[in-house]
Amino acid sequence: MNTQLRRDADQIIAASLKAVMPDEAVHNALKDFKPSGGKTIMVAVGKAAWQMAKAAVETLGRVDGGIVITKYGHVKGVLPRVVCFEAGHPVPDENSFMAAKMAIDMVDSLRENDTVLFLLSGGGSALFELPLIPPGDLQNITGQLLSRGADIVEMNTVRKRLSGVKGGRFAQKCAPARVFSVVLSDIVGDPLDMIASGPASPDTSTCAQAAAVVKKYGLDISSRAMELLNVETPKELNNVETRITGSVRELCAAAVRECRALGYRTVLLTDRLCCEAREAGSFLASILKTYEGEGGNLAFVAGGETVVHVTGHGLGGRNQEIALSAAAGIRGMDAAAVFSLGSDGTDGPTDAAGGYVDGTTAGELERLGWDVSAALRDNDAYHALGAVGGLIITGPTGTNVNDVSVALLRGGD
Amino acid sequence: MNTQLRRDADQIIAASLKAVMPDEAVHNALKDFKPSGGKTIMVAVGKAAWQMAKAAVETLGRVDGGIVITKYGHVKGVLPRVVCFEAGHPVPDENSFMAAKMAIDMVDSLRENDTVLFLLSGGGSALFELPLIPPGDLQNITGQLLSRGADIVEMNTVRKRLSGVKGGRFAQKCAPARVFSVVLSDIVGDPLDMIASGPASPDTSTCAQAAAVVKKYGLDISSRAMELLNVETPKELNNVETRITGSVRELCAAAVRECRALGYRTVLLTDRLCCEAREAGSFLASILKTYEGEGGNLAFVAGGETVVHVTGHGLGGRNQEIALSAAAGIRGMDAAAVFSLGSDGTDGPTDAAGGYVDGTTAGELERLGWDVSAALRDNDAYHALGAVGGLIITGPTGTNVNDVSVALLRGGD
Repeated sequence: MNTQLRRDADQIIAASLKAVMPDEAVHNALKDFKPSGGKTIMVAVGKAAWQMAKAAVETLGRVDGGIVITKYGHVKGVLPRVVCFEAGHPVPDENSFMAAKMAIDMVDSLRENDTVLFLLSGGGSALFELPLIPPGDLQNITGQLLSRGADIVEMNTVRKRLSGVKGGRFAQKCAPARVFSVVLSDIVGDPLDMIASGPASPDTSTCAQAAAVVKKYGLDISSRAMELLNVETPKELNNVETRITGSVRELCAAAVRECRALGYRTVLLTDRLCCEAREAGSFLASILKTYEGEGGNLAFVAGGETVVHVTGHGLGGRNQEIALSAAAGIRGMDAAAVFSLGSDGTDGPTDAAGGYVDGTTAGELERLGWDVSAALRDNDAYHALGAVGGLIITGPTGTNVNDVSVALLRGGD
Repeated sequence: MNTQLRRDADQIIAASLKAVMPDEAVHNALKDFKPSGGKTIMVAVGKAAWQMAKAAVETLGRVDGGIVITKYGHVKGVLPRVVCFEAGHPVPDENSFMAAKMAIDMVDSLRENDTVLFLLSGGGSALFELPLIPPGDLQNITGQLLSRGADIVEMNTVRKRLSGVKGGRFAQKCAPARVFSVVLSDIVGDPLDMIASGPASPDTSTCAQAAAVVKKYGLDISSRAMELLNVETPKELNNVETRITGSVRELCAAAVRECRALGYRTVLLTDRLCCEAREAGSFLASILKTYEGEGGNLAFVAGGETVVHVTGHGLGGRNQEIALSAAAGIRGMDAAAVFSLGSDGTDGPTDAAGGYVDGTTAGELERLGWDVSAALRDNDAYHALGAVGGLIITGPTGTNVNDVSVALLRGGD
């Protein structure tokens, strides 16, 4: 292994993750926050709700009241003047409904110069829900949509209309108070109406589209549900101001900054990557091979969320596949490395966040009896990389803003 | 279709192809050519041999003698003091052997201040061959290797030793004369000992490796062939000077130059691309999406040779798949386009060189009843792109230096 490159990689990883930790992200986003003179009520929802809330209270000094709604086991302590709730995820339960009800009670009677500080992170769809029909009916409709092959956009088009908080309706309930929304984005491209089904975002779907979905899948629904599908979601929300933070865009930007700080001339390729993982690895290796021997230190950063089509029975994850695939491509290149990791610290069903490879990896693997192509075919990147010290282990990081891959080339020191 | 982008694309295509036409490539390479005072004998071999020879004669004014060995139907006229031969491709025939014999006769008795101008292009492996065993025996060995699953490196390791011209042996026969070798590269990465089996390149394979191949596949070969496998190929050739020209590297460099001339800030991503075509298209689209709305005109160039794993029954080629796949990714982006083409003017079993798409393509296809994902699954890019004017048709170009893909984004004019 090239120890210089591995050291650089570890430093880039640490700096990138730090920038998208909920505390850092909230702290940065709240630089723009100015209370309007009235009360500030905090509503924090999602898997990172407690950390975001804690960071907000620390940054602002105090809030006048608030609620945290997060996953079971995710509340780590008491916050002053804030109620902390734990609820069901990924399937909403009674606690989700109760917590959402309480959140609405807190914001319902606010006035124009009051502010709702709304902190949203992934998982909010399940954790923050107030169905307008009996929960059993909602579950039944969801089941019908799933079994008939509806996609996520179609599901949301229907479900937003059956919810009291989704599709911008929570922000509507906050009015006339102002909503300052801080969104820790876990979806590539930051589509605000998709993240946690957009409680404080104008909805882009229409009643006509909802009716079309009902017809397309021949849904069997109650007349009350049918009525609700005809009630339009807000298309404009004048009381909302939104800061997207800790997204994959920031993850990549932080990686770029750290690469530059380490002396690499750096190109941000993309923060919207969505292709097959091993092909992305091959592409990154091709880039490095092109610049081999040209001198200078170069870095290329690509973030997003690749996919893996599982064909084998091994263990791995998309980031480990990117790395292993790149290993074959940069084989023998003394001064090249590729690494990739998931910002949440878990890649596939493994305890690794991702993988690191350099020009020595493919050769080392072969000496140990591994066939790189066979390991890829078997989706066994975890064991292959593990054999040569190529796993990146961070443990759960407390954030979740997709993945980042970096290709490094040292050309002269 | 975005007419401005299509116009830019056509201009970039024309300029890129022009740079790698045999005439242009030979003309550029011969800028470094200085005859040593003695005779200049030209030996041109490969599918582009005649064009290269013609360009060389025009550039130098005259040669003292020479031979062109190309595919049937590829000699387009008489060249002064040059014998033109046509021979079998991809399977060598009697004419190949006869021509190689004549070439060797021409260079065998040259002296130190004479020069062999050796012009090499793809297809030379078959077209330029002088077996050291009876042709039937050679064919039999090749057949055994093929049927037992030997790869191209293993095949060449054996066959170079059974040939009087491959693996550097032609250059050896030219000594003491100097060899000025101009190689029109058709293999990504320009591995000189692979292009036409490297008649004027030191061979990297060894007798021990050849023996290992014989053992691995249990080859049944004559004792004469066995003897020859133990004769080492040249590992060093002091009389050879090589110019690689018209390679995919020049194709990409020309594309980069033309993009810049048209006002695009341009990044050469790679000239070594080798991943799955549709995933490369997705990657390029992801790059454009990342920079959408940032202002300025941007271009990204990626060359090489992608692969297609055929799963459907449609018609298409790797460049058309890159384009169609990118169309889905840049859908709706007013000012974005991706195009890709094969420099030989044929992409897959079609009459198109490649494909062009922009932000309007996916929508247009849908209006016409096409499903982009389904067309990709069916490998039917040719018909899909054809339906929306997205094919690039150049006709056979007369060169063959792999493919180039370009992603364009206009940010403000």
